[in-house]
Amino acid sequence: MTRPLFNKIVIFGVGLIGGSFALALRKAHAVGDVVGFGRSETTLQQAMQLGILDRIGSDLAAELGNADIVLLATPVGQMAELMARIAPHLGAHTLVTDGGSTKGDVVAAARANLGGRIAQFIPAHPIAGAEKSGAAAAQADLYAGKKVVLTPLPENSQEAVARVRRAWELCGAVVSELTPEQHDAVFAAVSHLPHLLSFALVHDLAQRDNRDLLLSFAASGFRDFTRIAASSPEMWRDICMANRDALLDELGRYMQELETLHEALAEADAAKLEEIFDLARSVRSNWTPQ
Amino acid sequence: MTRPLFNKIVIFGVGLIGGSFALALRKAHAVGDVVGFGRSETTLQQAMQLGILDRIGSDLAAELGNADIVLLATPVGQMAELMARIAPHLGAHTLVTDGGSTKGDVVAAARANLGGRIAQFIPAHPIAGAEKSGAAAAQADLYAGKKVVLTPLPENSQEAVARVRRAWELCGAVVSELTPEQHDAVFAAVSHLPHLLSFALVHDLAQRDNRDLLLSFAASGFRDFTRIAASSPEMWRDICMANRDALLDELGRYMQELETLHEALAEADAAKLEEIFDLARSVRSNWTPQ
Repeated sequence: MTRPLFNKIVIFGVGLIGGSFALALRKAHAVGDVVGFGRSETTLQQAMQLGILDRIGSDLAAELGNADIVLLATPVGQMAELMARIAPHLGAHTLVTDGGSTKGDVVAAARANLGGRIAQFIPAHPIAGAEKSGAAAAQADLYAGKKVVLTPLPENSQEAVARVRRAWELCGAVVSELTPEQHDAVFAAVSHLPHLLSFALVHDLAQRDNRDLLLSFAASGFRDFTRIAASSPEMWRDICMANRDALLDELGRYMQELETLHEALAEADAAKLEEIFDLARSVRSNWTPQ
Repeated sequence: MTRPLFNKIVIFGVGLIGGSFALALRKAHAVGDVVGFGRSETTLQQAMQLGILDRIGSDLAAELGNADIVLLATPVGQMAELMARIAPHLGAHTLVTDGGSTKGDVVAAARANLGGRIAQFIPAHPIAGAEKSGAAAAQADLYAGKKVVLTPLPENSQEAVARVRRAWELCGAVVSELTPEQHDAVFAAVSHLPHLLSFALVHDLAQRDNRDLLLSFAASGFRDFTRIAASSPEMWRDICMANRDALLDELGRYMQELETLHEALAEADAAKLEEIFDLARSVRSNWTPQ
């Protein structure tokens, strides 16, 4: 049997993202030992039973010194503290990546807390599976055909980036690279803003006396438009806060767009409305999700 | 064989809405003759071949005098003229209903053009199938389990309303009643506004230099949020214009909602964001589409 590409990986936060990473690398025969750390003993035990982990970690120094890859798959809000805890124990050849949905804040936390190990951190954002969570939802093919965005740092060596890219590719992901700033601007536009707008519509209706009547006539258009308004409030609060500047820019632009539409409607400018709808329809019809 | 409930129905506009109405009543053995009128000879011939029509109408007077039900299933913009054309020929027992997505404008057109026949018009809005169109898309079960909203007029007799209700129920629809004003306010909130917002988001992105980059990272949340932005620009222009007042109210409210969110974000008020998201998630999670 050939030696796996990674002798040992260490997962912090063995939920959907972390658990699926481990299962995918196992399925690709790319990993030897999988060690998990986490706040919840129950989750860790469950991850053992599901075959995600080989063992539950107890000694940071012992596990991190010879780890090939460390994945930080905790909520973004916990990463700064976690980075400070692991930094002293990382081996010289240990690479660190993460699964956070925002990158500017994670990179800032890394710069503040990883110290001299910053070159070993290659940030990542896997675009997969926000609906479910927990170790029980983890699956080996979660990342198959999905996008993972790396946002390498100037300090990273090409070799380090290539190795982390390889890990995500072995999970089946299609890997691309952006700067952290580009990443946050892009996702403010195509993900964070739509979530905010969807929450806003349902919140607007939710406050009304006749909300049950209104909702009783809502149909498939409303269903799809508001599907993301059922997302986790805590997670989206954190994402909005973490990507506040880019999201404020996007929200401001969108409010301008609504001003234009409001004016066209108020002036009964049918041609203007059709022009806007027509460009939107054309672009949307020609776009296909990955 | 028992006599069908309706000896003859006449359909103006034999597309998805009109064709499916005919097919559904046929399947329910509730109709004798189905006669179609329309602007496109090709569509009418196709409807003949598909078994939707028994014949293509040529003489309004001959067909309308003894019709039980006339369905106006043309675009709303054509209804005023159509009503003026049919009014002189409607029989004393002929009832008229329609398939328009807005009701205030259709009722105004009816009052202006049906004259003494206004009591025979029972407006309807079937909530079904906006994605496809044309006679070829018509199907007998389009309305099965779907909502149809009647907006009866003060002039309508209970018997007339009951008979039109029965026709839609025989199509499998779940029929409810609102006033035309209630109808337009409800659909401005749960349908017209979301369409406008979805068009607006895609239009906003479509105008950017980096739109291809942005769209390449859009995922399932964006896909669902913008599905309705691929709807017909002409149809939605007309709906927005027809329901301008109610839609302006809704858009104004929504812009206030976005102001609130913008302020919370600008002030880094995480608790406020979570409060808004949490109410939205709770209401959306407890709602199930019909």
